[in-house]
Amino acid sequence: MTVSLDAFFSPRSVAVVGASTRETSVGHAVLKNLLEGGQPARWAPGPDGSRGFAGKVFAVNRKGGEILGVQANPSLTEIGEPVDLVVIAIPPRYIKGVIEECGSIGTQCVIVISAGFAELGEEGRKLQDELTATAAEHGIRIIGPNCLGVIRPAERLNASFGAGAPPAGPIGLLSQSGALVTGLISYTEREGFGLSAAISLGSKADVTDVEVVEWLARDEQTRAIAVYVEAFPDPHAFMEVARRVSAEKPIVALKGGATAAGAAAASSHTGSLAGSAAAYSAAFRQTGVLQAERIGEFMAWTRALAYQPPAKGDRIAIVTNAGGPGVLSADAAARAEIKMATLSEETLAKLNEVLPSVWSHNNPIDIIGDATPERFAKALEIVGQAPEVDGVVVIMTVQAMTNPADVAEAISNACTNWEKPILASFLGLVGTAAGEILDRRGIPEFNLPEEAVSAMGALVRRGQWLSRDEPEAFDASGLPAPDHARAQETLDRAAALGQSNLDLTLASEVLKAAGLRYNKSETAKDEDEAAARAEEIGYPVVIKLISPDVVHKSDAGGVVLDVVGPEAVRAACASIRTKIEESHPGARIEGFTIEEQVGGTEIIIGMSRDPGFGPLFMVGMGGVFVEVYKDVAFRISPFSRRDALDMIGEIQAQPLLNGARGRPVLNRDELAEAILRVEALVEACPAIVELDVNPLVITPDRGLVCIDARVII
Amino acid sequence: MTVSLDAFFSPRSVAVVGASTRETSVGHAVLKNLLEGGQPARWAPGPDGSRGFAGKVFAVNRKGGEILGVQANPSLTEIGEPVDLVVIAIPPRYIKGVIEECGSIGTQCVIVISAGFAELGEEGRKLQDELTATAAEHGIRIIGPNCLGVIRPAERLNASFGAGAPPAGPIGLLSQSGALVTGLISYTEREGFGLSAAISLGSKADVTDVEVVEWLARDEQTRAIAVYVEAFPDPHAFMEVARRVSAEKPIVALKGGATAAGAAAASSHTGSLAGSAAAYSAAFRQTGVLQAERIGEFMAWTRALAYQPPAKGDRIAIVTNAGGPGVLSADAAARAEIKMATLSEETLAKLNEVLPSVWSHNNPIDIIGDATPERFAKALEIVGQAPEVDGVVVIMTVQAMTNPADVAEAISNACTNWEKPILASFLGLVGTAAGEILDRRGIPEFNLPEEAVSAMGALVRRGQWLSRDEPEAFDASGLPAPDHARAQETLDRAAALGQSNLDLTLASEVLKAAGLRYNKSETAKDEDEAAARAEEIGYPVVIKLISPDVVHKSDAGGVVLDVVGPEAVRAACASIRTKIEESHPGARIEGFTIEEQVGGTEIIIGMSRDPGFGPLFMVGMGGVFVEVYKDVAFRISPFSRRDALDMIGEIQAQPLLNGARGRPVLNRDELAEAILRVEALVEACPAIVELDVNPLVITPDRGLVCIDARVII
Repeated sequence: MTVSLDAFFSPRSVAVVGASTRETSVGHAVLKNLLEGGQPARWAPGPDGSRGFAGKVFAVNRKGGEILGVQANPSLTEIGEPVDLVVIAIPPRYIKGVIEECGSIGTQCVIVISAGFAELGEEGRKLQDELTATAAEHGIRIIGPNCLGVIRPAERLNASFGAGAPPAGPIGLLSQSGALVTGLISYTEREGFGLSAAISLGSKADVTDVEVVEWLARDEQTRAIAVYVEAFPDPHAFMEVARRVSAEKPIVALKGGATAAGAAAASSHTGSLAGSAAAYSAAFRQTGVLQAERIGEFMAWTRALAYQPPAKGDRIAIVTNAGGPGVLSADAAARAEIKMATLSEETLAKLNEVLPSVWSHNNPIDIIGDATPERFAKALEIVGQAPEVDGVVVIMTVQAMTNPADVAEAISNACTNWEKPILASFLGLVGTAAGEILDRRGIPEFNLPEEAVSAMGALVRRGQWLSRDEPEAFDASGLPAPDHARAQETLDRAAALGQSNLDLTLASEVLKAAGLRYNKSETAKDEDEAAARAEEIGYPVVIKLISPDVVHKSDAGGVVLDVVGPEAVRAACASIRTKIEESHPGARIEGFTIEEQVGGTEIIIGMSRDPGFGPLFMVGMGGVFVEVYKDVAFRISPFSRRDALDMIGEIQAQPLLNGARGRPVLNRDELAEAILRVEALVEACPAIVELDVNPLVITPDRGLVCIDARVII
Repeated sequence: MTVSLDAFFSPRSVAVVGASTRETSVGHAVLKNLLEGGQPARWAPGPDGSRGFAGKVFAVNRKGGEILGVQANPSLTEIGEPVDLVVIAIPPRYIKGVIEECGSIGTQCVIVISAGFAELGEEGRKLQDELTATAAEHGIRIIGPNCLGVIRPAERLNASFGAGAPPAGPIGLLSQSGALVTGLISYTEREGFGLSAAISLGSKADVTDVEVVEWLARDEQTRAIAVYVEAFPDPHAFMEVARRVSAEKPIVALKGGATAAGAAAASSHTGSLAGSAAAYSAAFRQTGVLQAERIGEFMAWTRALAYQPPAKGDRIAIVTNAGGPGVLSADAAARAEIKMATLSEETLAKLNEVLPSVWSHNNPIDIIGDATPERFAKALEIVGQAPEVDGVVVIMTVQAMTNPADVAEAISNACTNWEKPILASFLGLVGTAAGEILDRRGIPEFNLPEEAVSAMGALVRRGQWLSRDEPEAFDASGLPAPDHARAQETLDRAAALGQSNLDLTLASEVLKAAGLRYNKSETAKDEDEAAARAEEIGYPVVIKLISPDVVHKSDAGGVVLDVVGPEAVRAACASIRTKIEESHPGARIEGFTIEEQVGGTEIIIGMSRDPGFGPLFMVGMGGVFVEVYKDVAFRISPFSRRDALDMIGEIQAQPLLNGARGRPVLNRDELAEAILRVEALVEACPAIVELDVNPLVITPDRGLVCIDARVII
């Protein structure tokens, strides 16, 4: 870990091992890209007139000869001078030897492009392990294997076999998929934005996302980081670095396989919801990484974040010369969960002064189809000063009389030195002169208004992340104290009884020991004892059959709710007896459970162990709806009180938590405390592999009360 | 209505009234567009060497003179020959006179571009009414006012003030927003697809979407119709034509203002959910119109539908040379609600024969980064024959060794004469030679894979619409017969009592008269009578307080559930008395309602009256969750049994309807019948302005049973 990655991005010299005269070979393509800067070459030539890499480029081929005008060396050693970066594109079985050679000539950074390692199974895995072991011996860092390579536009370094060449710009792109890198190179050229670096990580045998993100965080050219990932080799290490970096630079992630069903026990709520896609999303959320769902969003968000400041609030204004696209942008704002700003009287008055009388008098600020560059500028100046507006999207469509380039100039001039973000869409004009003027002035210009609005959403969420406040301390004096030793004893008891899925009594013991409030519950042998216990507990109560012979007690008529008064308790017990005798003749009736009946909004807290991330916690709406609407939020352990509160805030059914229809209002601090207590329990008792508290009921007078739980050890 | 719209699209001669030498004027722009075919002109010149309109073009300007090389006439009359199409761009107050002149020279089609009519308020509305009255007198049809104009690329007719010129193609675009038309002209040029016609409808004072859709339906150049709408002047007329046309040609709609909160009574579930955005969505669904949410989708879907056949099923294959983009496309398929086909053994075996051993052996069919054009072709030929695949998306990213144009050729050749649809994405290469090859061969090529997959989703839904089957007849013998006369009597009774929100008894009477099953319910004066009634009804029962003094009975302890046996009934009544005496001292206790207790999955059926569409029906998950998750579906009256079944199928909580967790399974035919009965009730009793049956419970043995309803008259 002590070797710097600098030589991957700004080497003084590069050698291609496997350079070849064969035009369809990867080695040929890499050498050509290094020499020419891309195929087709697009970078502006340097002072030496070359569009390719300015440092030294060496070709290595066992047979020697001349390749693309370069005299090939039969081996690295025979180059006879230091090589900062070696790019390898030869069959896997020869690569270990080349790495040893790298060690002998002092090369510390190596890109292995060749495929044919761990992705092919056991034998490949062995080869790969040998590779990394050899590299480690010589203090060599490897990017790859099975990757496209590395591109650093500002150095005209194209150490890849990608096509084309991305313009230089502020976005650092790292990708598990080489194909996505090469696809996005075409895309950046077309959309008119640039990259500080593109790194294809391939199999991540040595260098991973973690170090590259760290390097990009320190890189002055990089203002925003875009990460395409299918899996992190060390998810927690990524989380650690992402949390640190995202306080300074924005990170946007695109997760491939985000809809694949997770590999979890289908029998558990948490399990069936908490596949690793959920874990990744949780990891991104709790480390300030913005997760995009689509490639278009991925790039649009990163562009906006690289060029514009975060929004200080979620109220945006749309300035447009186009009515319909303005309406559609307001729709897009609702979908991006940002608000259309309500314009103040003062702002309206100022706009009235400079706009024709038929302007919309509302937000979207429709300045009418015949808007001149000056009208755009005046409207933007007013909106720029309006304190009720946190961000601006400016939209233009072209009529025969419009000069888009003049409008672009006027817009750029109007918002110099703004503190709030501005994004633009000149519908269909991306990549034209007008779009380039805006892009050059640091105003990202998008093809469609909906893309600009979606990107504004990213700026709003970035602002929200940066301004997260720490919650106040929680006064837990009203709650039972956690006693993890007692929890562990209960688990040991369950284990001794051979229970892997704890019965209700033991499960409730564990949760009580975790410091959660449980409903009162007693057992009774018969009707009289049941009535006596019910009197102690208070009404209404729930009466449940105790029988080892009846599994689905509720279906069999073994549960009676809403029982009030001793007579009713006796009647309920009797009714259960009758029904069970009918439905399960001969079943043993060992007695009844008498439970305090607690009704109200039902919450679930769950934990499952994700194969990559470990304990994954969930909170959401409980009861039967949990499986249908999946109105739940996830976090990876460890997480903070702030995270617990954020999870609660992500639940969709906020009105129910806020007391809609006369329901008791949730005490969010208490629920956050409960989540943290469940987390502490799981940390203290690693034997717990899965856990659901469902439901946890919001009561009017006693706070949150558990009435059922599943604990799997 | 007897005047054909043909002259709007293929006139022999066009006159611009308001043509001017002033370059910033609309009249100048329109004349220039007519003469040159667009600014900049992009259409290929005709045999006469002109890129502009091939017919005669006249300029009309009171002052005469020469404009853009055309000798202007002081009036239409002075042209001295027939004019098929007149385009007017002069101040509103002079337009009526021009219309009269049109009448005198026999012009039947007029485009009024000028704004300044109904959109400006009362006075403008008057001017507009005069305009349409005058036009009607002379048998003249008007497009506009306040519009961009009409473009017909195949005739090189650009009768608009838009910038640029869309290529000729198979998409008919009509738009309420002129700005969207001009924006989409830029977009079509950039994305490389063409339009059969672009019609900006503006204020729709005379010609509306209805007639234009009808015209495009008959137009041989048009293979798919794209409609941008904010509001239809006559929604039902649109529905009627859309239903008819969509059986032949696909229609895609983009609704501006789809997220604006509807203007409905906030006090009602249905009302608060059924704003007119919901009505528009319902109207589109039940007429086979595909509703896009974003501009990008709107165009992508229409392109796919115009060029490719509908998919016969929902199983797609992805053929890709790019792993990461393949993974992301599978994610996109899940989001587009289409399935990744499971490849058969036979298909796998065939692919094994032609692909390198490291191919993915799965769908996405990753044919590896170094795929040659031949490999693409071979894989596609196999997938084309696979019966388990209903549609194909082919993805390519470019490496330095790839020749995109050759791949495009190979793909085009491989899928000639396919019956299943194919769409392509060469990431970032839209508009390049490769993209053009595909587009020319009728394979729409999209910038990003996710766009291609989303468009494939449209082809799948189109196929599903075309193959909708009629449901079997429903045997209603198990249900009470509807008696609308009795329903009307009950409503009259309620009206006589001054009730606008019917009390529970009357509301239940109305729904029973509609032919819905209700739970049994009796009233009792005291404990003894309650116990007797309960014995008749059967257990469990719900006991409810009857008191004019207690509004929120449940909150006050006036409701007891799950009561079993006469003793328990007495105890429940007593408990209610005690609680009410505590909580509402002095409240009159007039007795108790004894209701059959029906528990289970709760459904809601609702009706509200939409200001545009009239009765709007809703079905979905009932209970408290209706407001939170809004898991409901809407239809406009009248609708068919098929529509009612479709509504049920749109509910998200399908597992609960299908009997998850031991719940009773919904009889969908019975629920469809219930919805149709509610619809028939509303039709028979127009006094009902709003109605909710909530909940309607799925019972194990008695089918659907209503237990509560709201009826507003």
